[in-house]
Amino acid sequence: MASSLLRRQLGLSVQRNLRLSIPGCRYVSKAAPRAQQEFEYDGPCMKTQVPGPRSQELTKQLGDIQNVGAINFFCNYEDSRGNYLVDVDGNRMLDIYTQISSIPIGYNHPALLKVMTDPSNLSTFVNRPALGILPPENFPDKLNETLLSVAPSGMSRVQTMACGSCSNENAYKAIFIWYRNKERGNSPASEEELTSCMVNQAPGCPDLSILSFMGAFHGRTLGCLATTHSKVIHKLDVPSFDWPIAPFPRLQYPLEEFTRENAQEEARCLEEVEDLIVKWRQKGMPVAGIVIEPIQAEGGDNHASADFFKQLRNISRKHGCAFHVDEVQTGGGTTGKFWAHQHWGMDDPADIVSFSKKLLTGGYYHKLELQADKAYRIFNTWMGDPSKNLFLAEVLNVIRRESLMEEVNRSGKALLNGLYDLQTRYPGILSRARGQGTFCAIDICDDDTRNSILTKARDKGALLGGCGDRSIRFRPALVFKEYHVHILLNIFNDVLAMHK
Amino acid sequence: MASSLLRRQLGLSVQRNLRLSIPGCRYVSKAAPRAQQEFEYDGPCMKTQVPGPRSQELTKQLGDIQNVGAINFFCNYEDSRGNYLVDVDGNRMLDIYTQISSIPIGYNHPALLKVMTDPSNLSTFVNRPALGILPPENFPDKLNETLLSVAPSGMSRVQTMACGSCSNENAYKAIFIWYRNKERGNSPASEEELTSCMVNQAPGCPDLSILSFMGAFHGRTLGCLATTHSKVIHKLDVPSFDWPIAPFPRLQYPLEEFTRENAQEEARCLEEVEDLIVKWRQKGMPVAGIVIEPIQAEGGDNHASADFFKQLRNISRKHGCAFHVDEVQTGGGTTGKFWAHQHWGMDDPADIVSFSKKLLTGGYYHKLELQADKAYRIFNTWMGDPSKNLFLAEVLNVIRRESLMEEVNRSGKALLNGLYDLQTRYPGILSRARGQGTFCAIDICDDDTRNSILTKARDKGALLGGCGDRSIRFRPALVFKEYHVHILLNIFNDVLAMHK
Repeated sequence: MASSLLRRQLGLSVQRNLRLSIPGCRYVSKAAPRAQQEFEYDGPCMKTQVPGPRSQELTKQLGDIQNVGAINFFCNYEDSRGNYLVDVDGNRMLDIYTQISSIPIGYNHPALLKVMTDPSNLSTFVNRPALGILPPENFPDKLNETLLSVAPSGMSRVQTMACGSCSNENAYKAIFIWYRNKERGNSPASEEELTSCMVNQAPGCPDLSILSFMGAFHGRTLGCLATTHSKVIHKLDVPSFDWPIAPFPRLQYPLEEFTRENAQEEARCLEEVEDLIVKWRQKGMPVAGIVIEPIQAEGGDNHASADFFKQLRNISRKHGCAFHVDEVQTGGGTTGKFWAHQHWGMDDPADIVSFSKKLLTGGYYHKLELQADKAYRIFNTWMGDPSKNLFLAEVLNVIRRESLMEEVNRSGKALLNGLYDLQTRYPGILSRARGQGTFCAIDICDDDTRNSILTKARDKGALLGGCGDRSIRFRPALVFKEYHVHILLNIFNDVLAMHK
Repeated sequence: MASSLLRRQLGLSVQRNLRLSIPGCRYVSKAAPRAQQEFEYDGPCMKTQVPGPRSQELTKQLGDIQNVGAINFFCNYEDSRGNYLVDVDGNRMLDIYTQISSIPIGYNHPALLKVMTDPSNLSTFVNRPALGILPPENFPDKLNETLLSVAPSGMSRVQTMACGSCSNENAYKAIFIWYRNKERGNSPASEEELTSCMVNQAPGCPDLSILSFMGAFHGRTLGCLATTHSKVIHKLDVPSFDWPIAPFPRLQYPLEEFTRENAQEEARCLEEVEDLIVKWRQKGMPVAGIVIEPIQAEGGDNHASADFFKQLRNISRKHGCAFHVDEVQTGGGTTGKFWAHQHWGMDDPADIVSFSKKLLTGGYYHKLELQADKAYRIFNTWMGDPSKNLFLAEVLNVIRRESLMEEVNRSGKALLNGLYDLQTRYPGILSRARGQGTFCAIDICDDDTRNSILTKARDKGALLGGCGDRSIRFRPALVFKEYHVHILLNIFNDVLAMHK
């Protein structure tokens, strides 16, 4: 079956599936471009409720091994294609959640399958190196071809890591090392520092902090978790650091209608940031860095203006804190620019930019001065995985070849306009439609209704995810076209009609 | 070239290379088994000093992107095979460091290459799922076939993670969650806990601790790093937790000659552990868990007796702390048993056992009671990588099919005896030869001599790594046979002769 999948896809032979008949369809698309249709399915196709019987059986099996409370259903990844995720009960769903926003160009993209069948790539998969000591010959070239070809403005250095949490943990370490070196005037550490650090004590393990924002999500390992403040379930019972937490602006949407109110709200938050920096310095725990998402994702798709970020950047400069932009969820094109921070229009947007998910490898870009002064300070066994860089190279090729950034902007516009439209139609249920590119969200009147809508949409073939207290987030792949938007909006409309 | 590599290897066509002529050769092997010789090279073959000119050129290129202070040389992974790592200058080295002990069955093992060419595996590589919510159909089966088939005694549950640090971080979180639930009598968290945890404060983020040992290495993310105490370079400038640190026994070798002294030393350390548990409870930071390596690896290959671990396990029980055995470096067969803790001969060796490296996927086994009570408490986007499970399945097959555990015991005996022999011959340079299976080490008179020996051995075709202040650690793959031991010992002997 897999080999025939490969044959079909590489050969681009036409495959036709039953068209989904959408009741009350109002969004009508032009015909989909042929290449896309040939590659993927024509629409969702639901055979059972989700999870279906086979998924339930497998969930029971897995329940003997792990906590399965978060399992949605089991997937048939072999048969999944493009924007469509197929489950083990034969249900085919339009995927607007994409493995928590981590699938860049859809399932089984022919370009990625080709990576697998290129014999010159074999050894990269089979022999995972310790990249920090024994990199493969093509490592500098691959970094130049991939991550550096899309490097944020002002950054020519990148460190790969295995996942988002590791990326942020190591970025924080780079910040602490940089900050202490600055404090020491780049002179060697004292004997007292060398001794005390081995037993977790200051001055060797200094009382430094990272300033983060309420609603932020930066990962779940202990360092990251000290800067994550989105949900109780992530935080409860885990020891943490006494680091400062600033309010993130709570804007009113649509942004253009509330310019004055939103500017005031942002000013209030920025003032609080400065206050906290001063307070924590006085407490003897100076703020070494500020970490922020361009759009708070897990925390509820909270936006702030370009001006807010510019001023925050200035505050970081003024107080000598590193400015770390966490693009783990926003990076990779989904906001209509490759990095969400590009919407700020700054030449010097950050000192560190971390990434993972759609980039397939984790890691962080940084300015030269944020590079650790010695070897083995930022280090681990694998330091990423070069086989992910191979896939990333193809993803970037596909983005360019298929003009996916233009698609994202086109689809994003259609999606956001559709959400505005639905919001007008269902004012009792929907509010605060917002987004950049296809990175969109909308609020639902309450948590229960949100969850009911998510379930019903799934049963109708649209897989969506929640965020924040009562938001729905839209996280399609970059191959999500305008006609996919229309399929989604029709399903969403039908589900909303059931809740009216 | 790669496709011909695959053809050669899958076809097992015989390839002969120039035999290495070893000056002063004293260790003589029986002929290598044919299958092994066919697959790999006959011996090291050095063409330049290491790093050679091409490696130096690439290091310069990479230096524009990253700190390259730790780079040894650049590798040609395509041409590497079995126990031999080939570099970009055509040097072929017997690899006794194996990517910081993370290559289980050598380079380009035919069984692993086959995984890549099996069409039914394609989609697992191309579509990385969010395992915690949307696992693939074969996930429970693969876990049963792989990780659970080698589960530590008393453990039927396993959580995969991307790397060693993530594994330990999440294991610590599981311990904290378990401990707090126990303290609460499994009743729901209070309103105060729910509120305070969001801003990093107690009681929601409780003042709990993990007890670790001096010389330990458990990773470099902030939680792990608070339990790592092997080298200054890992720790300096990174904020930490005030957690208790016990002395790890400093034994005299060979163990059988110092039974009484070593037992006293171990008793001293155990007493200190209990004292620390009591002290930290009084400080209001109860010890929720004890974490320990069966052999401290990075910290200098420090051993302790089975009796020490048994008593430590009892102390953990007595004080209600979880017992976490970190097998990231020791796991996977290298000590002559699949898990190093099996040498202790206990039915109930631990509450949590973490792994990574040779297992190719990270993760941790745990007892049922250490499973988080709710979904999303132990969670991240990827939760491991099923493509690594595919390779692990094959690794385990190869271990069984090629009786690699027997090989490890045979080679390990030859290696340790050889080290004893050399130690007698070079008493001014070598001391404290020690090991289990092929997981061996020896101390060198001082750091400079150690580093000089490492460099000279490398230039003669034996790639080794250091650990601790002045030890050399031997970390061959499981396919390291007795005749490889002899090649290594001959080179080592020649290098020592130069230092006499």
